[in-house]
Amino acid sequence: MYYFTEEFEEKIRCFTAAAAMAAPWKPLLLNAIQTNSNLKHSSFFQLATIGSNGRPTNRTIVFRGFENVSDRIQINTDCRTSKVEEIKHCPFGEICWYFTDSWEQFRINGRVDIIDESDPDPLKLQQREKSWFASSLKSRLQYLGPSPGLPCISEETSSSHEYSLDPSSGPVSAFCLLVLDPDQVDYLNLKSNERISFTYKQDGDGNKRWTSKKINP
Amino acid sequence: MYYFTEEFEEKIRCFTAAAAMAAPWKPLLLNAIQTNSNLKHSSFFQLATIGSNGRPTNRTIVFRGFENVSDRIQINTDCRTSKVEEIKHCPFGEICWYFTDSWEQFRINGRVDIIDESDPDPLKLQQREKSWFASSLKSRLQYLGPSPGLPCISEETSSSHEYSLDPSSGPVSAFCLLVLDPDQVDYLNLKSNERISFTYKQDGDGNKRWTSKKINP
Repeated sequence: MYYFTEEFEEKIRCFTAAAAMAAPWKPLLLNAIQTNSNLKHSSFFQLATIGSNGRPTNRTIVFRGFENVSDRIQINTDCRTSKVEEIKHCPFGEICWYFTDSWEQFRINGRVDIIDESDPDPLKLQQREKSWFASSLKSRLQYLGPSPGLPCISEETSSSHEYSLDPSSGPVSAFCLLVLDPDQVDYLNLKSNERISFTYKQDGDGNKRWTSKKINP
Repeated sequence: MYYFTEEFEEKIRCFTAAAAMAAPWKPLLLNAIQTNSNLKHSSFFQLATIGSNGRPTNRTIVFRGFENVSDRIQINTDCRTSKVEEIKHCPFGEICWYFTDSWEQFRINGRVDIIDESDPDPLKLQQREKSWFASSLKSRLQYLGPSPGLPCISEETSSSHEYSLDPSSGPVSAFCLLVLDPDQVDYLNLKSNERISFTYKQDGDGNKRWTSKKINP
């Protein structure tokens, strides 16, 4: 009898810990993704980073899903883009994701991890490979093109038509996976005029957990 | 005869100077605004700034037109939002404006000027007033609400229904005009796969002018 109680208590403890760890903004985001899924651009958001000159920079990015079952956000990019260099200098980013149909905005701030081919962690390399194969062949071909942001030498080089790639080949050198680990999320619903601020921080017991509060829109 | 030639030459000089000063990206942007004008969200863009903690921040903003006939971009905001404090610390911002119908992106970087009620320049105050009256009464009412970003005290305070405002009253204290003066624009067309980088810089004669180059997308 005592044995079962202890096991049960342990389960409750695990469940409570998991619930405390779970990101309470994630169901809101999943719902917005679902509600707006009829629009191609609903998987696009803007990622702000800090440029090498200390000024903010900002560009449109495609959402590539969450890392496994976590709340970490995946982005595919070319190692040769300036944002990768920028993130090496200042490893923080803020996503602004506005859903044009449901009028919801998520501002997601966190540390960005760069996973390129030189990463020493085999699990991260596996994640990079998974993301490579999850993207379309057309997307993959872009990484074979000339260096993004450099002067255009000829009309032809800007097109990916001339490149070919074996669909079973793994990620090329230029392919890079960025993983944003959120620790601050600001949710705004312009239809209900509600705004919630979510923060991931240490509680009294030294455990990290998400807290939320309603704030003025 | 000589008189007319001189006058003509002066006209040519003025015209050339004006052409050199004119922002070559502006016709592209005006065309994108026009092409996408059927979509309400086409007047929304994302503005990145640098937060007080040194991290990038990012939020959706409504385009409020150009300042007079210039290429400076106007934004209305509440003086009490954190972005105003952020811009006081680092007066630079990057707009990322993605047009979902025409698949065009403009990344517009520049210095941001804050025009609040305490501005000593009467012309700037006039501009602020003009922008106040150009916005809808519903928009104006938002500036009477509780401080944005602060904890929400009650359900009622988050709504602007209870406030009223004389349509002929000038801007309230909380109303602030931001003016972004672009000096770097990155244009990307995802349909034609073209990308152009525009930079405003000093030429050999010490005059500032826009230059442009095609870069790899």
